[in-house]
Amino acid sequence: MDSYVIQTNGNSSLPSVLDVHVSLSGKSSMSGKGKGRKRWSVKPSDMARNTFNPIRAIVDSMKLKPNPDKTMITLSIGDPTVFGNLPTDPEIIQAMKDALDSGKYNGYAPSTGFLSSREQIASYYSCPEAPLEAKDVILTSGCSQAIELCLSVLANPGQNILVPRPGFSLYRTLAESFGIEIKLYNLLPEKSWEIDLKQLESLIDEKTACLIINNPSNPCGSVFNKSHLQKILAVAARHYVPILADEIYRDMVFSDSKFVPLATLSSNVPILSCGGLAKRWLVPGWRLGWILIHDQGDIFGNEIRDGLVKLSQRILGPCTVVQGALKSILYRTPQEFYQNTMSFLKSSADLCYGALAAIPGLRPVRPSGAMYLMVGIEMENFPEFENDVEFTERLIAEQSVQCLPGTCFEYRNFFRVVITVPEVMMLEACSRIQEFCEQHYHCAEGSQEECDK
Amino acid sequence: MDSYVIQTNGNSSLPSVLDVHVSLSGKSSMSGKGKGRKRWSVKPSDMARNTFNPIRAIVDSMKLKPNPDKTMITLSIGDPTVFGNLPTDPEIIQAMKDALDSGKYNGYAPSTGFLSSREQIASYYSCPEAPLEAKDVILTSGCSQAIELCLSVLANPGQNILVPRPGFSLYRTLAESFGIEIKLYNLLPEKSWEIDLKQLESLIDEKTACLIINNPSNPCGSVFNKSHLQKILAVAARHYVPILADEIYRDMVFSDSKFVPLATLSSNVPILSCGGLAKRWLVPGWRLGWILIHDQGDIFGNEIRDGLVKLSQRILGPCTVVQGALKSILYRTPQEFYQNTMSFLKSSADLCYGALAAIPGLRPVRPSGAMYLMVGIEMENFPEFENDVEFTERLIAEQSVQCLPGTCFEYRNFFRVVITVPEVMMLEACSRIQEFCEQHYHCAEGSQEECDK
Repeated sequence: MDSYVIQTNGNSSLPSVLDVHVSLSGKSSMSGKGKGRKRWSVKPSDMARNTFNPIRAIVDSMKLKPNPDKTMITLSIGDPTVFGNLPTDPEIIQAMKDALDSGKYNGYAPSTGFLSSREQIASYYSCPEAPLEAKDVILTSGCSQAIELCLSVLANPGQNILVPRPGFSLYRTLAESFGIEIKLYNLLPEKSWEIDLKQLESLIDEKTACLIINNPSNPCGSVFNKSHLQKILAVAARHYVPILADEIYRDMVFSDSKFVPLATLSSNVPILSCGGLAKRWLVPGWRLGWILIHDQGDIFGNEIRDGLVKLSQRILGPCTVVQGALKSILYRTPQEFYQNTMSFLKSSADLCYGALAAIPGLRPVRPSGAMYLMVGIEMENFPEFENDVEFTERLIAEQSVQCLPGTCFEYRNFFRVVITVPEVMMLEACSRIQEFCEQHYHCAEGSQEECDK
Repeated sequence: MDSYVIQTNGNSSLPSVLDVHVSLSGKSSMSGKGKGRKRWSVKPSDMARNTFNPIRAIVDSMKLKPNPDKTMITLSIGDPTVFGNLPTDPEIIQAMKDALDSGKYNGYAPSTGFLSSREQIASYYSCPEAPLEAKDVILTSGCSQAIELCLSVLANPGQNILVPRPGFSLYRTLAESFGIEIKLYNLLPEKSWEIDLKQLESLIDEKTACLIINNPSNPCGSVFNKSHLQKILAVAARHYVPILADEIYRDMVFSDSKFVPLATLSSNVPILSCGGLAKRWLVPGWRLGWILIHDQGDIFGNEIRDGLVKLSQRILGPCTVVQGALKSILYRTPQEFYQNTMSFLKSSADLCYGALAAIPGLRPVRPSGAMYLMVGIEMENFPEFENDVEFTERLIAEQSVQCLPGTCFEYRNFFRVVITVPEVMMLEACSRIQEFCEQHYHCAEGSQEECDK
């Protein structure tokens, strides 16, 4: 007899939701009895538990009640599109429409992306010192997935990776969810956020799976010069540590600085460089990212390449329409568009830096690229506030200006300013920050002299 | 003294690629010495090694040399767009263009998707028996990521999940990459691919983290009736096993069958239902999928919901343009479009089933939905071939018709036919399969009588 028969009485006026648990006949199969659970107990996996976004955790626990008399100014969101002052280019929109009209980009692409799209990225970024072909490019669902794939191919649980402090929180989020330890190396504000190389080197051990270099930097807006990059490569080469280069801001560098792709400076250190359309083309929501595999010394070999391909098959790559539009996006976007973006960001950075540098108690670090600026807080001169979190909380409460505390980037007593906001808003924000600081500034003991100036 | 100084002689005619490894001064920092590796050894992680796509592995090892005298007919690709006979609807393309023109969908969305997009999915699929609100919807980068998130929130390494045989290979690929064991439960061809419930139940133990139900089925094209779904729910309820319902083909059911969403039949079994735009709207490359959280008994509670949200933050959701187009895609696509798709698929299924059923040695199972049909091979009547892999290899070599062997779906001695190909191609393919079978059919011993018919 079939022990699975469910008792129903054929009365169609009964609710159609049949609570099968209650309706069982009681004569359940013996086969599985006693082996399963005895009650409902569905708990999230360790991976879910260990997936932790520090920014969310910190911001969610902050008291974020703005001053009702002042409109909110948000300098906390790293999305250049939110204020409407930095729209993408019409050519980029047209490229998408053309891809849609072609009817060719509705089906599945290979999980690493269409061959033609990978060829386009390869030729766009290839250079004699670090040549690229289609086989060296993997398209991903945004730069986030590029970083995820790189970490998940290079590191096992129990290994460690080296991560900048201050740095982008996603590295920690991803690593810890995989059971990979992170070790923080220091960036030095007094050296324009260059790496403390000795401290970096002291962290390396036999379990170090990779070194993450984020250049240009979020949250610092710093751009490493060639000489510093060579020193970083020397450390990696000496200890045989591959590099994950997060170069998503590579095309966002002010004209007085120069971005040097890390891979162009080494023929032996294997490098996975991550990037995407998000920043240069101002379409972060479109989720098209990539990994560029630089392996002139054949250290990664086929194994790492195959590993990346296999991992890419888990979710099958980015939206095909964006892939179809890629060629036009790369080659038809007018130079003027890039120039306008960068000249806006440069003038916004100058404006913000200049205004904040004049405020007692603040020590902004001048950025050279990306969309951010880090500002040191002389906490000894703001005795009312325990730390950067409380400082930024009170800045919201009193002035309705929101900045992320440095703690979000593992760096205390700083805050990060996003410089993509319209000029008038930036001016107003700086003036409110000034008012706030002037109201709360107290001379630290022993520095009366400076206060009297 | 800075031990990181790299020796260069300032000669600018030197190649710009500086082999930092060779150029080191030898006075390296002691701090890290002896702790790191002694040579390059970059190996893929266990996760990469364990990410295994059985279809790729089987197909890559097959001898796929078509007959040069016959054009290739590919009945192996589960992508309805490849032949051009099933284009998406112009309204759907227009919806994308409108989203682009609005300028509102270029920035980041929340990692679970725009609230408005989640509301639209919720109201589209909500029904009294299984109500949905925006909070019950998580948008993902395709249905693949939806399944990945569900598995990764429900199961820990060392636990097991129950997976259909024959079944979609992604379940195994994802589970094994996470270190989750898969246990295969049987679908019964003689019962229109219903589940062998006793065998299913016998697999459940205290480590069973979830039961995957794929309805309608890939590769079977079967659609479970209400009574069978209730019996499945009874098993889940009796053993307190949550269900991952892969319902990506929910809207692709022939008019003589009826799809019943699993969640509408239970008020106590917690169900994560996965779906997406790929099939009904014929845009699989756009990578918009979703998870519908059904938890009327509050078994998942906030913990599983929070876990899904946290996991979604790893790669930040699907392309925002598609999210922006969602409302129009859901509500403006003409009914005619769906009807045309389904009537084509139904007539293609009938044609294919009818033709193959008449071929000696083949036993097709009539499908009720999706885009597939499974065909049994009476291997005893094809003694030349060792198994389904060899059968399909030879079918390519002699007739240039490619079907996936059942082994790709963990089911021997069957092959899968994709029914989205144009009618003329399907007719030609069936006639070639007939020729192939007639050439290789030999009566098995003891069944001479039947052969003489």
